[in-house]
Order: sequence, then C-alpha cells, then structure tokens
Amino acid sequence: MSSTALRARIQHRIDTKTKPQGALGRLEEIALQIALLQQTEEPRLKAPQIVVFAADHGIATQGVSAYPQEVTAQMVLNMLAGGAAVSVLARQHGLALTVVDCGVKHDFMPQPGLHIAKTCHGSEDSSSGPALSASQCAAALAHGEDLLRGLPGNVLLLGEMGIGNTSPAALLMARLTGLPLTDCVGRGTGLDDEGLARKTAVLSRALERHARLSHPLELLAALGGPEIATMTGAVLQAARERRLTVVDGFITTAAVAVAAALEPAVLERCIFAHGSAENGHSRWLQALGVRPLLDLDLRLGEGSGAALAWPLLKSAELFLAEMASFASAGVSDRDGT
Amino acid sequence: MSSTALRARIQHRIDTKTKPQGALGRLEEIALQIALLQQTEEPRLKAPQIVVFAADHGIATQGVSAYPQEVTAQMVLNMLAGGAAVSVLARQHGLALTVVDCGVKHDFMPQPGLHIAKTCHGSEDSSSGPALSASQCAAALAHGEDLLRGLPGNVLLLGEMGIGNTSPAALLMARLTGLPLTDCVGRGTGLDDEGLARKTAVLSRALERHARLSHPLELLAALGGPEIATMTGAVLQAARERRLTVVDGFITTAAVAVAAALEPAVLERCIFAHGSAENGHSRWLQALGVRPLLDLDLRLGEGSGAALAWPLLKSAELFLAEMASFASAGVSDRDGT
Repeated sequence: MSSTALRARIQHRIDTKTKPQGALGRLEEIALQIALLQQTEEPRLKAPQIVVFAADHGIATQGVSAYPQEVTAQMVLNMLAGGAAVSVLARQHGLALTVVDCGVKHDFMPQPGLHIAKTCHGSEDSSSGPALSASQCAAALAHGEDLLRGLPGNVLLLGEMGIGNTSPAALLMARLTGLPLTDCVGRGTGLDDEGLARKTAVLSRALERHARLSHPLELLAALGGPEIATMTGAVLQAARERRLTVVDGFITTAAVAVAAALEPAVLERCIFAHGSAENGHSRWLQALGVRPLLDLDLRLGEGSGAALAWPLLKSAELFLAEMASFASAGVSDRDGT
Repeated sequence: MSSTALRARIQHRIDTKTKPQGALGRLEEIALQIALLQQTEEPRLKAPQIVVFAADHGIATQGVSAYPQEVTAQMVLNMLAGGAAVSVLARQHGLALTVVDCGVKHDFMPQPGLHIAKTCHGSEDSSSGPALSASQCAAALAHGEDLLRGLPGNVLLLGEMGIGNTSPAALLMARLTGLPLTDCVGRGTGLDDEGLARKTAVLSRALERHARLSHPLELLAALGGPEIATMTGAVLQAARERRLTVVDGFITTAAVAVAAALEPAVLERCIFAHGSAENGHSRWLQALGVRPLLDLDLRLGEGSGAALAWPLLKSAELFLAEMASFASAGVSDRDGT
C-alpha cells in the first residue's frame, strides 16, 4: 500500500469511531503518528522501556548546579532501589526501567537494572577543553546503538540523570538553534540569581572556546556529555528500528536535537512528552517545530515526564484498537446518516 | 492537628522527597490538595468511579446539535457494551463505570452498569419554557445525592452524554459568569457556521425568556437539564463526603459551577481534568479561578478527559506514598547538606 493510501485508511478508521471527528484531539494525532510509524492500521505499543542515561560532568566543578556531584551516583542507586520518582512511575505503569552508567564518577557494583557502558568517569570541563574526545564520543554513540539493539519491545522512553547536565544541554541548544545563550540557560535543579549568573558566565566561556566547531558530532563531543552522546546513539538506532521514542525534558531534547541534526526523519518517530519548566525548553521545542503533550511545570528529568505521558500514548493505541465504529455499534452519525 | 500544621507537615513531606523542591510541578499541587482533602499526610485514592450522567434535551429539537437526538440512547448502549471512548479508557485504568439515565428519551432494559434515575423523558425546550419544573430539578438533585451515598471509594470522575447538552451548559455559563452569550456558545460536536448562528439565536431567546430568574437552582431548572441537575447533586454530596471530584469538560463544569454557586467550598474538592476545545470552557475555568491539568484539544465529553487525567492523580498519590526521602535514600540535598 502506498504511504498516502495507508494514511487515508488510518484516518478513516479514526474518523469512523463513535465520536465526533477530531473530538479526541491530540490522541487522534498520536494514533495516526504511531500507526504511520508501525505502518499498520492496528498499531500496538509493546514492552515499553524507560532507559535512564546517567553521567557526570566536568563543568559541574564550576558551580553550575545547586547539588553536589556525588548526587548522580546516589540517585542512580536510589532509582535501582525503587525510591526515585521514575522508579515509582515505572512501577505504576509496568514500564521496564534500565539505568545506564554512561560515565558516572563512581564504580557501581553490577546489579539488576544497571547497564554499565562507561566512556569515562565524568566528562572533562568544556569551559577549558572538549568534554569528550572524538573517540569517547564515538564509543558513547555506539554504546547507545548497541543497547537499543538488545532491548525488547517497540517503545523507548528517554530519561537521564547527571548533576550539571542542563549545562551541556544549554550549550548544545545555543549552537544547534543559534539562539542567544541567555535564552538557553536556566536554573536547572534550582539555582538562585547569583548561581544563574555564574552558570551563564561559565557556559559563555565554553561557547567561545569551541566557537570554530560546527558539525553536530563535533559539538556533541566538545559541549555535550557521556549520557547525551549515548542517548543520541540510542535515539538514532530507535528511529532506524521504527521504535517510538518518548522524549522527556530539556536534556533528552538535547540528544534528540543532535540526532535530528544528523537524521531529520528522527523527529517523526518521537513524541515530546512535556514542556519542562526549565528555561529554554519551550523555545527549543518551538525551534524543532514540535508540540509537547503535557504541561505540568515539571523540571525533574529522570524520564519522569515521559513516564507520566505513557498512559496517554497507550490510550491512543487503545481507542484505535478497541472503540466501536458508528456502523458496528449501530450509532447514527452526524446529521442522522 | 490544626489545618495550618497539617499543611506544613504535608508540604515538608513533599519537599524532602528525593527531587529538587517543586520539580514535580502540578503533581505536587495535586498531592497537597488530595492530602488536605483527606486530612492526612498519606492520602489514598480508592475505588475510583466514573459516572456518566445521560439525558435528552428539548432544545435539541431546535437544531442546536450536529447529531440527531436518538444518539444519546445509542451512545448509552455503546458505553454499556464497552465500545465508547469512555469504556475503553475505564478498562485501561480499572475505573468502575456507571451510566445514569437521568432523563433519556428512551426506556432502557435494566442491565449491569446502568442506573435508572429518570426525572423525565427528555427535558422541555428552554427557549419556550423552563427545561425542568422545580420539582423535577429537586428530584434530580436528590437522585445525584442518593447515587453518591451508594458509591464505594473516594473519587468521583464526572462524565455526561446528551445530544444538545452544550446548549444548557452555555446558558448556565452566561448567567453564572455574566459573560456575553457569544463567549459561551460553541460548536459542540461540530456545528458549521450556520449551525452556530442558529444555536446562538435559540440560546439568546432562552436567556431572554428566563431573564428575571437569578437563584442558581432556578437557573438550573429553567436553563439546565436532567443530567446537569443530577450531576450537581452528586457533586454537592461528593464534596460533603470529602470525595475528590474529577471534572471533565464543558458540561460537567456547568454542574460544578452550579454546585459552587451554592457551596463555594466545592471547588477545593475538585480537580479540573482538562481544558476542552469547546469554545467557552477555558474562559469558564478562568472565571472559576481554576487551572485544568491537561490541554489535549479534547471535545468529546463522556468523562473521557477525566479518565485520561486519572493516572496523573494516581501518580501524585504514589510519589507521596512511595518515593524515598533524602534521608532514607542517603542522597545529599542541595548545596551538599
């Protein structure tokens, strides 16, 4: 079937469900997107996986976060023990949760739910050199691709953990969108005005230092970080496999934006779960031409927003699969037809 | 414990969970609201009930809807058979679904899931007389209260079905808010421009005819309808029992607005699930001083938006109950404390 014919068939199926046309709003858009992605009128979301990409950042030593760096490792353990927000939400919705150590400044004991794919013990400080070397960045991308190849199901929900990681995300935003740095920098986990000014000054130095770079992969290495690079590889691989990717907040958007700069078709395979309260996120989504599903003033990361959006995606699948049509239910359509 | 002391304890519990303060955004507000409603630091949402209040409307004979009136009864049967949007969503989330015949122009056979509490076989046309008599309206309110007394659990999710029922809702909005009728009238299930003009003219006549009335109960009888009146009784009773009420779209807002005009404290016991695409809904929520949780361009009714919001309410309960605190998880708080 041609893609135009398939789209018409899916739309017809949506429109003949027992509801006024368009009355399920964004859910109808999602149902169409998922059906086109899976190239079937009866798409199914299977074995959804939340993957939390974790790493530390050299730039955190410059005082760009309200929290100390050891919190990254502590929160990884909290997630694995079931006490973090994302753990609670994953349990609520039956989502498999994997935490990937992409470069945390700590050596974890092997344990269920933890996948070790380190490229470093924390990145370097991008305000004084590249965050990752080219080979570290390539290794991280490959880790992300490999990880995805081994994951069951057809839905990837993105999460991340890394003290200081709104900084690499803001740097990537500034370079990929061309927006002024002040539009991209925010308070992260809760900086005060003084902290925000310090963070902006540090990031401004980092941008200056790497100003001559322009390829998305060069920017990813110099300004990004291990979890963002690993996630970028995962997003690229998910798109190749026609998996649905559910994007969380500001940092996961950074990985998707790098992936989309390399392969624009990635965006059609993503759903943006929510607009984060982090300054810059809504502007970035606008620059990407996408509209988030939820607007709940979240600014936690971890994949919490992606997990909160999950039941809505499932609802889109289920209405398409299970709702009666006007004909099957014997309900009169509009104007009595 | 005083209410101020309780509020402080709940807020402390929210703030010491392993996340930056406020990072769960609207979920934190909901957790606080539910905890205050249940007057405990560990609120639990139990046995959630979707109740769909159904009825027909005399005003529908004036061509104010794109759908013929028999669709009300057909959709009630579709809901009970499991094929309507609300049926699919109720199954997805394990919500008990009850349909209440408050005044459908059809006599249903008794069947599981259907509660018969008729005050009429369709209301009268409010453009030529009162929609309900005072005694019919009082009976409907009592039916709603009685129904609630018999429902298990502590959460009521409001739904409705009634061809033409955006008309009584718009009339109540115009009178309760004082806004011009054109701000209150919308396309309902999908009127074209001509249909919208016809609907506005009919509603304008109805407003004129009942212009001397002012008490909320007089307005409810003259301009409202059987499902709105029954729902108003249910909302009042739910608030008395400190049940959480989850409000759906434009028509359920009408019932809550009448209830709040009688007992302002009702509003604190409600969560507004979503802002409907029906013209007027967002303005009405603003007039009530409340902010909806979702914005998904829904305009279906049935309780579909309330059901879609349900997992977010559950998430609010669960993060408060199950997330680790900084102390219990051994995670450093901000600034290393």
